[in-house]
Amino acid sequence: MASESGKLWGGRFVGAVDPIMEKFNASIAYDRQLWEVDVQGSKAYSRGLQKAGLLTKAEMDKILQGLDKVAEEWAQGTFKLNPNDEDIHTANERRLKELIGETAGKLHTGRSRNDQVVTDLRLWMRQNCSTLSGLLRELIRTMVDRAEAERDILFPGYTHLQRAQPIRWSHWILSHAVALTRDSERLLQVQKRINVLPLGSGAIAGNPLGVDRELLRTELKFGAITLNSMDATSERDFVAEFLFWASLCMTHLSRMAEDLILYGTKEFSFVQLSDAYSTGSSLMPQKKNPDSLELIRSKAGRVFGREDKEAVFEVSDTMGAVLQVATGVISTLQIHRENMVQALSPDMLATDLAYYLVRKGMPFRQAHEASGKAVFMAETKGVPLNQLSLKELQTISPLFAGDVSQVWDYGHSVEQYAALGGTARSSVDWQISQVRALLRAQQA
Amino acid sequence: MASESGKLWGGRFVGAVDPIMEKFNASIAYDRQLWEVDVQGSKAYSRGLQKAGLLTKAEMDKILQGLDKVAEEWAQGTFKLNPNDEDIHTANERRLKELIGETAGKLHTGRSRNDQVVTDLRLWMRQNCSTLSGLLRELIRTMVDRAEAERDILFPGYTHLQRAQPIRWSHWILSHAVALTRDSERLLQVQKRINVLPLGSGAIAGNPLGVDRELLRTELKFGAITLNSMDATSERDFVAEFLFWASLCMTHLSRMAEDLILYGTKEFSFVQLSDAYSTGSSLMPQKKNPDSLELIRSKAGRVFGREDKEAVFEVSDTMGAVLQVATGVISTLQIHRENMVQALSPDMLATDLAYYLVRKGMPFRQAHEASGKAVFMAETKGVPLNQLSLKELQTISPLFAGDVSQVWDYGHSVEQYAALGGTARSSVDWQISQVRALLRAQQA
Amino acid sequence: MASESGKLWGGRFVGAVDPIMEKFNASIAYDRQLWEVDVQGSKAYSRGLQKAGLLTKAEMDKILQGLDKVAEEWAQGTFKLNPNDEDIHTANERRLKELIGETAGKLHTGRSRNDQVVTDLRLWMRQNCSTLSGLLRELIRTMVDRAEAERDILFPGYTHLQRAQPIRWSHWILSHAVALTRDSERLLQVQKRINVLPLGSGAIAGNPLGVDRELLRTELKFGAITLNSMDATSERDFVAEFLFWASLCMTHLSRMAEDLILYGTKEFSFVQLSDAYSTGSSLMPQKKNPDSLELIRSKAGRVFGREDKEAVFEVSDTMGAVLQVATGVISTLQIHRENMVQALSPDMLATDLAYYLVRKGMPFRQAHEASGKAVFMAETKGVPLNQLSLKELQTISPLFAGDVSQVWDYGHSVEQYAALGGTARSSVDWQISQVRALLRAQQA
Amino acid sequence: MASESGKLWGGRFVGAVDPIMEKFNASIAYDRQLWEVDVQGSKAYSRGLQKAGLLTKAEMDKILQGLDKVAEEWAQGTFKLNPNDEDIHTANERRLKELIGETAGKLHTGRSRNDQVVTDLRLWMRQNCSTLSGLLRELIRTMVDRAEAERDILFPGYTHLQRAQPIRWSHWILSHAVALTRDSERLLQVQKRINVLPLGSGAIAGNPLGVDRELLRTELKFGAITLNSMDATSERDFVAEFLFWASLCMTHLSRMAEDLILYGTKEFSFVQLSDAYSTGSSLMPQKKNPDSLELIRSKAGRVFGREDKEAVFEVSDTMGAVLQVATGVISTLQIHRENMVQALSPDMLATDLAYYLVRKGMPFRQAHEASGKAVFMAETKGVPLNQLSLKELQTISPLFAGDVSQVWDYGHSVEQYAALGGTARSSVDWQISQVRALLRAQQA
Repeated sequence: MASESGKLWGGRFVGAVDPIMEKFNASIAYDRQLWEVDVQGSKAYSRGLQKAGLLTKAEMDKILQGLDKVAEEWAQGTFKLNPNDEDIHTANERRLKELIGETAGKLHTGRSRNDQVVTDLRLWMRQNCSTLSGLLRELIRTMVDRAEAERDILFPGYTHLQRAQPIRWSHWILSHAVALTRDSERLLQVQKRINVLPLGSGAIAGNPLGVDRELLRTELKFGAITLNSMDATSERDFVAEFLFWASLCMTHLSRMAEDLILYGTKEFSFVQLSDAYSTGSSLMPQKKNPDSLELIRSKAGRVFGREDKEAVFEVSDTMGAVLQVATGVISTLQIHRENMVQALSPDMLATDLAYYLVRKGMPFRQAHEASGKAVFMAETKGVPLNQLSLKELQTISPLFAGDVSQVWDYGHSVEQYAALGGTARSSVDWQISQVRALLRAQQA
Repeated sequence: MASESGKLWGGRFVGAVDPIMEKFNASIAYDRQLWEVDVQGSKAYSRGLQKAGLLTKAEMDKILQGLDKVAEEWAQGTFKLNPNDEDIHTANERRLKELIGETAGKLHTGRSRNDQVVTDLRLWMRQNCSTLSGLLRELIRTMVDRAEAERDILFPGYTHLQRAQPIRWSHWILSHAVALTRDSERLLQVQKRINVLPLGSGAIAGNPLGVDRELLRTELKFGAITLNSMDATSERDFVAEFLFWASLCMTHLSRMAEDLILYGTKEFSFVQLSDAYSTGSSLMPQKKNPDSLELIRSKAGRVFGREDKEAVFEVSDTMGAVLQVATGVISTLQIHRENMVQALSPDMLATDLAYYLVRKGMPFRQAHEASGKAVFMAETKGVPLNQLSLKELQTISPLFAGDVSQVWDYGHSVEQYAALGGTARSSVDWQISQVRALLRAQQA
Repeated sequence: MASESGKLWGGRFVGAVDPIMEKFNASIAYDRQLWEVDVQGSKAYSRGLQKAGLLTKAEMDKILQGLDKVAEEWAQGTFKLNPNDEDIHTANERRLKELIGETAGKLHTGRSRNDQVVTDLRLWMRQNCSTLSGLLRELIRTMVDRAEAERDILFPGYTHLQRAQPIRWSHWILSHAVALTRDSERLLQVQKRINVLPLGSGAIAGNPLGVDRELLRTELKFGAITLNSMDATSERDFVAEFLFWASLCMTHLSRMAEDLILYGTKEFSFVQLSDAYSTGSSLMPQKKNPDSLELIRSKAGRVFGREDKEAVFEVSDTMGAVLQVATGVISTLQIHRENMVQALSPDMLATDLAYYLVRKGMPFRQAHEASGKAVFMAETKGVPLNQLSLKELQTISPLFAGDVSQVWDYGHSVEQYAALGGTARSSVDWQISQVRALLRAQQA
Repeated sequence: MASESGKLWGGRFVGAVDPIMEKFNASIAYDRQLWEVDVQGSKAYSRGLQKAGLLTKAEMDKILQGLDKVAEEWAQGTFKLNPNDEDIHTANERRLKELIGETAGKLHTGRSRNDQVVTDLRLWMRQNCSTLSGLLRELIRTMVDRAEAERDILFPGYTHLQRAQPIRWSHWILSHAVALTRDSERLLQVQKRINVLPLGSGAIAGNPLGVDRELLRTELKFGAITLNSMDATSERDFVAEFLFWASLCMTHLSRMAEDLILYGTKEFSFVQLSDAYSTGSSLMPQKKNPDSLELIRSKAGRVFGREDKEAVFEVSDTMGAVLQVATGVISTLQIHRENMVQALSPDMLATDLAYYLVRKGMPFRQAHEASGKAVFMAETKGVPLNQLSLKELQTISPLFAGDVSQVWDYGHSVEQYAALGGTARSSVDWQISQVRALLRAQQA
């Protein structure tokens, strides 16, 4: 009889277990961080059992004290894992039995392993998402503060890595901050779906012993109760949702990192990463690599395509570190505003040149073509676009007049984009206040 | 000068385009279904231009009438695509110009291709998600109705494909319906993030021409306005979210299909698929394959891992078909209630046997082991668990008494699971009313 | 000057590193298992340096002895990691310096970290793939042996989980074994692409110090030398290939596991898993779950979609365990041959009934339809297909005659499938010999 | 009786099929391109039936002529699809029956739909892979030719987007060409596994009618015969392998495209894309976007994670277009050699400065630190590294002497990297000859 081993399904088995199989099955290595929520869940459940008359008050108190002792051992690092502990739940139960004897066996009345596992996981994730939420908002706040402080710095906006239009540096920061506000909103929605009590679902049929799930909910501060016991113990939508959230958030951070890596190259020289976020090369003494940014990018790939508990732990850690590194990078980043302005070139005002003609009455498609011809003429002559003479411009369209010279002012160009969401000073201010309002709302 | 070709960036290019390259770039094949929203967006934008003084009232009216004519041609199937039309937007603009002349060129003043593409995509997805939402709720409703009608049928609940505990057939239906209510909730949240106006963001810097984005929002009935023009034109979070939603929903439908395929095998014989949802084999005359269910499963794989516009179209179609097929399957499914009951066996009451001992005061872990020993004893003797004599049971535990015979009633077993979410009749009724309440709330 | 820290890029940096950043970057936790190959690679490189005149014989000997000492410490478990060791390479170098002093610094002349990392990874994977290759062939061998021993057992072949045609049990085993022979072939091809020396590629430009890469290749027993130094240090095709190999192999094992889980249900009852490969339920005493098979299935998902070094370590471990568990499962599996035969039913011979008509001259499509009508007639009358009278059959086709009774023999049915690859005894024997020949060839 | 409809499982069904279901199941839209191989396969199979005595010579000839007529109709575009044709195989069979009458029904004797589908797919993929193989080698050849012609152009090698060491432009080209040679090798291995005959496997049990599979193999020019009939009809390893091959190849092309996009920015200005591979912006007249390169990058994502027949068709098309576009891009790319050389800067020789000290006897780790100090000193003083005076260098190490001035020659630096695989002229020549040898070998 294999029951000596103390395995939970003790009574029925006669064969020995292949040792490779045992190792294969054990998850204790990664789920030990669940110790705290496991004790929490067990304490609540013992209260439920007592109310249902399955534990006496004395038995319940004994169990509660035993569980507190288990928690204390974990907190103080004195809990000793046993090679046969296949997961955190077995370990805690084994220890509880050592501490308080057979009464420990009553704690699991009507509670299945799945019941317990999914409750613990939801408790852990609820707590962790809350931490990540805070870190994410801290990052957004850092970005908005910086955007506010550096509103007057202009630099090239790029599309397809080609210089496109002059924009404010803050406009670039805000484009990333705004993306992160969506992540923040999504995380709050995921948290709400995590915050639902499954305990009391048994294996699949439910709990047959009169345990009051509403009491369990209140004890564990869940927002709602799962509707169906089969669904409750098997569904992991919230895990998939959390991992998807992390994927999308990492994609945003990764894009920001990609931009910053580029802006930090010798060729662009717009920004310089703090030494605290760079590393060197073991071979090339002059190298200073943007390792923090590259790690953010490479971590993005790690998040995708997994849907298990290990993934949750790993991804939570990664996200926590990444959000803090990103906050650090942004707050210490040095920018070279003179290089930024120097990178602006007259051809980036070709769109404005077209608008000049539009304002004189030409349909935009014709104006676009006329401006394109001016760009081509300037390229052919080897001069900057703003050095074409009025006469030359007039060979393209008679609508060009002396006032065309006003087009060639970058500051003036930027100020035109005053529609909501644009790069004009007023619009950037509006964005800053909108994001701040969102942060306040999401924090509430 | 390549401008004759009528390509949008007419003015500047001198080289010819590699014909393979042209084909490579063209997306007209799959985005033609955007014609309606493209016209909608253009009509709203022309109103914005008129308000900003960039179109006269007369010009606006001419454009609006031209666009209506374009829409009419699409609706009547008379719109003729031109081999040079690289996407739906180019096609509509080309046709508008043919219809109303140069004024057509004014429509695109300050509007970039990205601006237009993302507005169209959001409009299309908003409409489509609304349809899918309705189909999904229709499926849930069908399931709940069926669950209500068949509440008194018992059959085996399985875990790991092993018979676990007796449950109600309705409990199984509801376990899947409840999962789908989460999909329904998520889709509503995604829809809300889709329903945000990007138009008026230009290429990246914003709109410089005084276009009133609030007017555009009202015209197109969007719920909000994007905050940052760079983010607005480049972000596709809502596409990723929609595809993730579809993945998760398909995973749920796929699991249900998997169960039904199994329940429909000769070996299980619990259900029988309607002929309308089966197909035969070209080789084996006796075969009747559950093709509808297998297609649902195989389509699940198609949804994952893509994030482009083509994926949205394809996945929307798939989801629409799958939801309707699933509704059809569920509403026509024939069940064999006698086979279901016959599949219940006394060993599935081993948990109840343990609870019997628990109620007599034995800690659950000991009771579990005692019940396990009884199972082992019955197997060894080659008799069903309920055929062990009281004497035999008492060799395992003296707590067994004459009243143990009450354990062997499946109906009684099921009724114990009366905690919220369980399989007792009262709890199943509660689930039905909860899901119905959710449906009403989500429909509002 | 930060050089005190002993970090490899000591000279240039002045800022401190954000502690989160440091943790973020460290990989020592998972790459410590590279210690052995790291020492191997360094020993070979020091020989290369000596031949190139960059180390004296005495210096080389000192380094070789120091490296042997490092290896000894690892082997004996006495190597002490230092909190500043960011990876295994730094750790070994740091320790070497402690053991032999400044000469240690000469070992890395002209060798970049990438150079070293990728060489170590290839050495480790070469060794590991060789182990996995052996385990995979062991599994195939076990399957073929079992197929040979149980050639005479018939049972239903399924398509779409519907009973399709009678086949040999060995035919099913071989269908999975044959799939695994492709994995075995693929692994050998991947191994060959792993077995290419990158060392001597420096950072990107190559090695400028006259190191003889042919000597390095011979020392480390690689089969070839990488062609381009930039490609050599950055490419990880072999990692992606290995992970893809693992995915495909796991897919095959997962499908086999899926079949066995099904065949082991109460409803099918064809096979019974050894207790060594089963586990129980903490709640339901009668349960015996096919956990080994379910873990094989669930691990399949873990393998996909990652392409980093951690994935390689994790996946290698998983594959090693899975292959051994699968071998154990197959070799201890108990089969219920009587249940297998009983599951055969006359309607599975409907194809044979059609062939009967074909042999009498009817085109197959008509014969298929005639046989389908017979199936429908039998179902309508509620009798097995072989209980239709000759008269009844003749209402469907006059070609039916008294010899139709010979169709209803399962053994005879199976023996017809004698074309190569079929389920006839002769063909199964041929398959066994073919797979054995492949095993011999792949082992060579 | 539903048999009128002409569906293949005609005899048995009584219910009608849900129209949505029908659409759901139909694959004719994407598999019509299989018409040619489907006819090929059927012709071979009818020869097999005749040899087995199941068709007379006259019947076979009638079928062969009918099939030729079907092929002719497809080739001439006169084949008319019928709304009930659910796939290409049904369509061809339906048409054959119209052309030659009931004899058509004999063609499918003993051949299952799966048998036919997988044979067709293998035939189609074999042909297609052969085309892709040729296109891939054409691209590699173009790259090697260009590498040979431009061997003397130097430019910065980058790691982490930071300037690292001077290299030859050809070294960069070859780093990508070498990666593609692995793709070419892999494709040949996949092709070999595709080139295996499944026909003659029936549904699952095999072929019972004495069809000679060796004859089928010879007729269809396959290299081998599948070993097990169950495996043969269900396995799609070759599809997964092909898609993985495409993923990896696209990853390589995508990385090359990424480099070229960067090198083509205003900030780098190393290369200029031909107009034939660029497009403009609809809003900004000055823009010239590297669309061909961006499409290559974006297509990479399309290839991953699907394993169905549609994916094969789509990915084959994509790969064909991408390989041709890449060849076009490379062959027309204009390079700015003067910008390339100007981008080289003395700090990129910091590694060489360290090697200078190594050659004077200093251990590399110390030399690396000394060179790092020189870089820091130059930065602090605001001068290029090669402008530090000998005196200044000697404050760092007394080993610096007058001959240090020889370090500052880029051409000399590059020539040091003469170990196999390096960037020295001799090594680049070796790479070119090696890749050419590979191309010849792979073409054979």
